[in-house]
Amino acid sequence: MNAISHDFLHTAAQLGESITRPYPNSRKVYIQGSRPDLRVPLCEISQYATPTELGAEDNPPIPVYDCSGPYTDPQAKIDLLKGLPPVRAAWIGERDDTEILAGPSSEYGRARAADPATAHLRFEHIRPPRRAKTGACVTQMHYARSGIVTPEMEYVALRESMRLQELRDDPRYRRLLRQHRGENFGAALPDTFTPEFVRNEIARGRAILPANINHPELEPMIIGRNFRVKINGNLGNSALGSSVAEEVEKMVWSLRWGADTIMDLSTGKHIHETREWLIRNAPVPIGTVPIYQALEKVDGKPEALTWEIFRDTLIEQAEQGVDYFTIHAGVLLRHVPLTADRVTGIVSRGGSILAKWCLAHHQENFLYTHFDEICTIMRAYDVSFSLGDGLRPGSLADANDAAQFAELETLGELTKKAWAHEVQVMIEGPGHVPMQMIKANMDKELSDCFEAPFYTLGPLTTDIAPGYDHITSAIGAAQIGWYGTAMLCYVTPKEHLGLPNKQDVREGIIAYRIAAHAADLAKGLPGAQLRDNALSKARFEFRWEDQFNLGLDPECAREYHDATLPKESAKVAHFCSMCGPHFCSMQITQEVREYAARQGIEAQTALATGLVAKAEEFVSGGAEIYHRA
Amino acid sequence: MNAISHDFLHTAAQLGESITRPYPNSRKVYIQGSRPDLRVPLCEISQYATPTELGAEDNPPIPVYDCSGPYTDPQAKIDLLKGLPPVRAAWIGERDDTEILAGPSSEYGRARAADPATAHLRFEHIRPPRRAKTGACVTQMHYARSGIVTPEMEYVALRESMRLQELRDDPRYRRLLRQHRGENFGAALPDTFTPEFVRNEIARGRAILPANINHPELEPMIIGRNFRVKINGNLGNSALGSSVAEEVEKMVWSLRWGADTIMDLSTGKHIHETREWLIRNAPVPIGTVPIYQALEKVDGKPEALTWEIFRDTLIEQAEQGVDYFTIHAGVLLRHVPLTADRVTGIVSRGGSILAKWCLAHHQENFLYTHFDEICTIMRAYDVSFSLGDGLRPGSLADANDAAQFAELETLGELTKKAWAHEVQVMIEGPGHVPMQMIKANMDKELSDCFEAPFYTLGPLTTDIAPGYDHITSAIGAAQIGWYGTAMLCYVTPKEHLGLPNKQDVREGIIAYRIAAHAADLAKGLPGAQLRDNALSKARFEFRWEDQFNLGLDPECAREYHDATLPKESAKVAHFCSMCGPHFCSMQITQEVREYAARQGIEAQTALATGLVAKAEEFVSGGAEIYHRA
Repeated sequence: MNAISHDFLHTAAQLGESITRPYPNSRKVYIQGSRPDLRVPLCEISQYATPTELGAEDNPPIPVYDCSGPYTDPQAKIDLLKGLPPVRAAWIGERDDTEILAGPSSEYGRARAADPATAHLRFEHIRPPRRAKTGACVTQMHYARSGIVTPEMEYVALRESMRLQELRDDPRYRRLLRQHRGENFGAALPDTFTPEFVRNEIARGRAILPANINHPELEPMIIGRNFRVKINGNLGNSALGSSVAEEVEKMVWSLRWGADTIMDLSTGKHIHETREWLIRNAPVPIGTVPIYQALEKVDGKPEALTWEIFRDTLIEQAEQGVDYFTIHAGVLLRHVPLTADRVTGIVSRGGSILAKWCLAHHQENFLYTHFDEICTIMRAYDVSFSLGDGLRPGSLADANDAAQFAELETLGELTKKAWAHEVQVMIEGPGHVPMQMIKANMDKELSDCFEAPFYTLGPLTTDIAPGYDHITSAIGAAQIGWYGTAMLCYVTPKEHLGLPNKQDVREGIIAYRIAAHAADLAKGLPGAQLRDNALSKARFEFRWEDQFNLGLDPECAREYHDATLPKESAKVAHFCSMCGPHFCSMQITQEVREYAARQGIEAQTALATGLVAKAEEFVSGGAEIYHRA
Repeated sequence: MNAISHDFLHTAAQLGESITRPYPNSRKVYIQGSRPDLRVPLCEISQYATPTELGAEDNPPIPVYDCSGPYTDPQAKIDLLKGLPPVRAAWIGERDDTEILAGPSSEYGRARAADPATAHLRFEHIRPPRRAKTGACVTQMHYARSGIVTPEMEYVALRESMRLQELRDDPRYRRLLRQHRGENFGAALPDTFTPEFVRNEIARGRAILPANINHPELEPMIIGRNFRVKINGNLGNSALGSSVAEEVEKMVWSLRWGADTIMDLSTGKHIHETREWLIRNAPVPIGTVPIYQALEKVDGKPEALTWEIFRDTLIEQAEQGVDYFTIHAGVLLRHVPLTADRVTGIVSRGGSILAKWCLAHHQENFLYTHFDEICTIMRAYDVSFSLGDGLRPGSLADANDAAQFAELETLGELTKKAWAHEVQVMIEGPGHVPMQMIKANMDKELSDCFEAPFYTLGPLTTDIAPGYDHITSAIGAAQIGWYGTAMLCYVTPKEHLGLPNKQDVREGIIAYRIAAHAADLAKGLPGAQLRDNALSKARFEFRWEDQFNLGLDPECAREYHDATLPKESAKVAHFCSMCGPHFCSMQITQEVREYAARQGIEAQTALATGLVAKAEEFVSGGAEIYHRA
């Protein structure tokens, strides 16, 4: 056992304590797919019964989408030293279009594997990498276009469905499934998510299923406008700190709160080794910005970057299993002077590196000139593109300017190229944008990039709240998600100020789960309102425990409640701390209901005949005005 | 000195320490109006110079709207025991349409004044109340309709303007004042706020200036769609706790973070005395829900409420100086059964009290049947209506339903009645509403209530995040503010769970300042982008101190920064903790600028001739591609 493994044992112990305990009163269930090894995780939140005069009335369990992987499954045996089980391995193998290499084919990968100086940091159970057989394309887009429904596609269809069809047939869910009509701005949300629907969305490029063949530990998920809106959490070390074990811990923590994908943005030491530990333990897609590592290889000097170094980095990372690459191929030399008049110039790290390279060499961005070769590499591992917005606005003043939109147009051109190679593509978006200018971003992306999924950072709707940019940006994220963005990149309270700690990560993720869910509701995603309805019913019935447990952060809700009313008895009390025992609107409403029921008011008649105009008529009927929910 | 005064001395000492210290690197300035006693406060944030190769370049001070009253003015002598100076007293007196009463004219007010049991709690410097002379109307709406520009109107015109005209003529602000075009959905935002514009907006009912003649301590402010969006912070004790001194402390704390008005929602002990302390020390309008206190007077039994008790409560509170009353006169008997099928019934406290009363008596809501008498009382003190939404939805499921909209239509009818009495009116709105249904609320309010200012709670855009409802609702608040809502009632993280502590209040207010400001930007409020532009420029230039100080919460921003890089030297460093010293996009961009300047690139030519197609052309020009901002 090397030094880092020892370090990890400590982390593993910690994981057991605060990060991986199951969600309260919930259990991990698996939807069985068409083959025994296709089991789709779901979190089922149990509810307590509603006490009524006629006895307790059961409340059914509420299924919720679950990003947390095996970590929250008490049945699963977690061993960070070995990594997660390779659930996709058989699917990939059966396709028989890949070959297992003897070892890493990147120069850097080989050098690192042989480097005694980093041996103490190395993940100890590295599998040899897979690559497409010569001439083969192994992307989900390729299969989709060939009419093949892969196990990955079936998996995400079941995952997005969350058993909705079954629930619709179950009378216990009838009222809970009531939902307002959405406004989806021309999206094509289905009534149910079938494998064929998934295949078709991937085939036409309107969704991506990021799933590197070297990431068999992945629980497949899909990113597209016609599915549940996803969120990404960033992590990664920097020159200023944090260890490999800390990054893995941060990842598991992020998944617990609901990150659908993780980007490893490490720029510090041991980037290669950190990534290996992350991917081997990641049930979600991992994205990277390869230019960050390439820059480290040339000692931080952008002008020293070469295509060869970058190319080797792509292969190195693809063979580790990175699922999507941010590639800033749209930062063209001719775009750079368009940023001259900006208030905040170029704020994307990738964008500024490439702008500097272009100027230093008086040449076009090498990512653009080598784009076809990049596609050739990525299709051999099924790495998806996240075409980077290197010229995104870093302030409201710079929003929607010529530089930003020129780059977006170029990303559209590159989307077509990538699709010609059957490589999956999503498009990165801003940034800082005032509300009235957000929709133009979405509309332009849809038209210029042919409905390829949009993946935005926020946007932040004001610049004036450092310390609260999870909120300034959740406002924009909810809106752009509603308009059609498929994935929202989170922002933590420390944005612009410092490195997020665990609490910051949690707050950033919850803010983005809120934004994404608000967007799902507004779009009218089937079943989206179920959890809201269940929680509100619990709230109204003073089922405090259920109100906590159905929330996005049960631990926080309970803690806040207990700060005012710590006693356990308060959690079954028919009042809350805001109004106290003698003055509670919900209690009064319940009294109104009971009163009305005793009075025998015929509500059906009242409703059927329009409004009840006089009190005399109102109280003269039969039955109850409030139905028991 | 009585017991509470002693208590207050302690609070006052605390105020000096953490609540009233001036904002960092800022000073309180006063805009001089047309008369010596008309001085409008403004906070001016100083900036440090930008170092350049040619020496330091000054950055001008940034004016920001200031709700904090004298508390943040180091020149002001704060004495909570005596209350704030009565800045409006002369204006009210000079109008010569009011009389000073011998003492409280409400029965309850007289009884409390004479009650030895509460003597130890009493504010010791109570002025006798004023009331309109018989037959006179003393509302700002009355003056406005009579063509009179009151000092209050001039005050708010200067306050909303924030010296914008001067700044426009000052070359130092030229670039900083650049702003994107807004989308205001048919609002009538002016280019500059003149007293005549203010008068006209009040006359037509499109804005209110809540300013009770018994609240001379008030620094006037305006609530209307064509002005800066305002926010309200709630406080108040409950049966479960908090003292009078704590409430006053919470108020001052709320003002510090930016509450434009305060609602005192006390339902616990000593409501009357608490309110007196609050108003005497309040530079902002104070709103109440009189039915809460009326209910306490009948021991919490809604059915025991009478018009007489309510009427006496209105007079009691009006004579203390409450600036606006929430009156739930739209909860009609015929509306109650419309809530029968709801998931969360009636969640408004006022709404449920009145529904219960209506059912118990089989009679129409007495606030509705006595509405003209209510108007007669309110016009004698210039108390504004906040027509309550007693049937607002308490869950997404209940949004925009028949009950909610039937009540809104009734509020429109009542608006006309109130305006016939020349009483100012705003309209309260929901609640819980998914994003796609928010605009319908605004549109219906504008048409049914004739553009009377809308004042909404959130709305919360999802029910599933207890513990984070400041965020779920800031998303909705930003949108409805953009669509035309004039004031946003804040929600704290403890909403639905417990009583907010000071930190919760701060987070709730900042979240709402963000929402309101995002709305101002989106509407295109003149000058709204100035602070964003200044902060972003500071951020780009690594002026860390200025970035903190220009933000909504300088203390939090600094603390977050220092958590990663605590040394003072880091605050002048040209890098930040996210990327570290060797890898910083902003630094790289600056290097790109310098490089480009050295290369002598003729950006003007490049921009004028369209995009620079080839690198050779790009570097062949003169001048710089980046201008120093």
